[in-house]
Amino acid sequence: MRVVALGGGHGLHATLTALRRCPVVGDITAVVTVADDGGSSGRLRRELGLLPPGDLRMALAALAGDDERGRFWSGLVQHRFGGTGALAGHAVGNLLLAGLLERDGDPVRALETVGELMGCAGRVLPMARVPLDIEAEVALEGHDTGHLIRGQVAVASTPGRVRRVWLRPPEPPACDEAVRAVLDADAVLLGPGSWFTSVLPHLLVPGLRDALLETAAARVVLLNLAPEPGETAGFSPGQHLEVLSGHAPGLRAHAVLVDTGSVSVADRLDTAAADLLVPGGRVWPADVADARSATPRHDPDALAGALGDVFAALSPQVAGTPGTHDDSPQRGRSSRWP
Amino acid sequence: MRVVALGGGHGLHATLTALRRCPVVGDITAVVTVADDGGSSGRLRRELGLLPPGDLRMALAALAGDDERGRFWSGLVQHRFGGTGALAGHAVGNLLLAGLLERDGDPVRALETVGELMGCAGRVLPMARVPLDIEAEVALEGHDTGHLIRGQVAVASTPGRVRRVWLRPPEPPACDEAVRAVLDADAVLLGPGSWFTSVLPHLLVPGLRDALLETAAARVVLLNLAPEPGETAGFSPGQHLEVLSGHAPGLRAHAVLVDTGSVSVADRLDTAAADLLVPGGRVWPADVADARSATPRHDPDALAGALGDVFAALSPQVAGTPGTHDDSPQRGRSSRWP
Repeated sequence: MRVVALGGGHGLHATLTALRRCPVVGDITAVVTVADDGGSSGRLRRELGLLPPGDLRMALAALAGDDERGRFWSGLVQHRFGGTGALAGHAVGNLLLAGLLERDGDPVRALETVGELMGCAGRVLPMARVPLDIEAEVALEGHDTGHLIRGQVAVASTPGRVRRVWLRPPEPPACDEAVRAVLDADAVLLGPGSWFTSVLPHLLVPGLRDALLETAAARVVLLNLAPEPGETAGFSPGQHLEVLSGHAPGLRAHAVLVDTGSVSVADRLDTAAADLLVPGGRVWPADVADARSATPRHDPDALAGALGDVFAALSPQVAGTPGTHDDSPQRGRSSRWP
Repeated sequence: MRVVALGGGHGLHATLTALRRCPVVGDITAVVTVADDGGSSGRLRRELGLLPPGDLRMALAALAGDDERGRFWSGLVQHRFGGTGALAGHAVGNLLLAGLLERDGDPVRALETVGELMGCAGRVLPMARVPLDIEAEVALEGHDTGHLIRGQVAVASTPGRVRRVWLRPPEPPACDEAVRAVLDADAVLLGPGSWFTSVLPHLLVPGLRDALLETAAARVVLLNLAPEPGETAGFSPGQHLEVLSGHAPGLRAHAVLVDTGSVSVADRLDTAAADLLVPGGRVWPADVADARSATPRHDPDALAGALGDVFAALSPQVAGTPGTHDDSPQRGRSSRWP
């Protein structure tokens, strides 16, 4: 089956790593945010006016070939220059993508080229062909009126509470190939990842949002394992779903996949998800966190298994025999949610 | 036949471009100077302490595959970032080589990797595995004593008259693979190019100089089409040969290839070449300049034709059986040359 995963950063990396371990998934497309303004990506976009390459590079790395050649090129693409000079911290892959973008101007071809080099088990596309900026209205403690904050780094690290985000320029044109992939997919995945700065931006590109509303694909929302310091500090799982609905009225999901151990009160999540889910859609708890990790992190094999179960239940004719879903009782792991 | 071309910069690019058009040449190895300290290369070696990649990159470009893939990667590798920022002027290929050098530390493997990417019709090797510096003793007008000048850029652009160059660190170890290539070659070519800063440095690496003295290959010196402003301003062709002999006592060439139109008094060149040539060796005039070019430039086809003639005369058994030299049982390395 054909699966499109939308996101950015480490969250998308986790989804892609899991998807390539799903036996029923035959075709993977990553659709990646292009609003980063921090680190190596931020320096490159400010200097050269190009798409920020970092999230694109990370998605390519998640899909890199699992043979000697794939590992070699993936390692090089991910390598960051050392020292304290002009190149310090730049990933080699960011510079390679920047060179392709500056020379040919076509991000889809640039990503195809580097993807081929790395022997990628899937395709990586930008959500838009031009660099975008995130702006947010943020509530600050002790202030009645909202404050405007600009830039992914600023929004991701705000001490205030994010109320709403939007893109600059507003209503940007979507990448045609990304729209086509969503329309042609059997399943589309939204999240996990930085909720306001990596997940929601996809819904703020009208062409992409419309495709997500129109597609006949199974729509699956993957919730984070914990709120993120900064942009979603203090947000419950339900509040994550509420801001999702708030930013894309009309969007309906067939499943909301949530880590069993990360949600303490499942029925409250069911209520919060009611507006987002299609009739018959459901919250799907599964044990997908890496219990050995000190920081919240998905276990790729567990996530692959859970996704396989969801796909089998939602589109049995495509995914094959429906899997047996285990509604196991919640385990004793301490919740990271408020 | 197996040919090794030693040099750097545009001169080496011209030789390699011609060599790949020589039907008798089945195997090309470029051995490249690593003492550049200017431009993108100079910035990279100062920032990261790596081999200066520019001359290596240019040699790779000269050998790049003549198909769609080769042209694509060659174009990207040669592309220089625009703008006025930290990346401005850096060639993408320099950054790719720098990434490989920083990550793996092995310049021979790095060059193999990029050469494979570009579908190169030959191998590119550094003359040494560590970055080197050129120093020169220069005579300045109105001064009796020589002045010391340091760095390739400074030597190449000195207003004084270069008397002698040497390397820092002194007597650096040669790249083993380059030594091996020279010893195994059927012909080795020295020049054309910036005489003091791209050609002579090869003779200042003891292991490489010894290999050039010992090899049974035909040794061919290719003279420049004109003196270069700065380092060889006012030098006659004969004086080029004299400084070559002066920097590598004992080196003997089988032929000195010189452009017919660039030398006005051939018999004076014969006299100047006498010390450099083996008994029976000769100055070989040929029409190899690009008559349409405003600046001195070799015509690749004409240079290929002239080199083919030289090879056929010096090494008829080898040059007459293109591509089969390795199996040739009658090849007598020690008796091949006059």
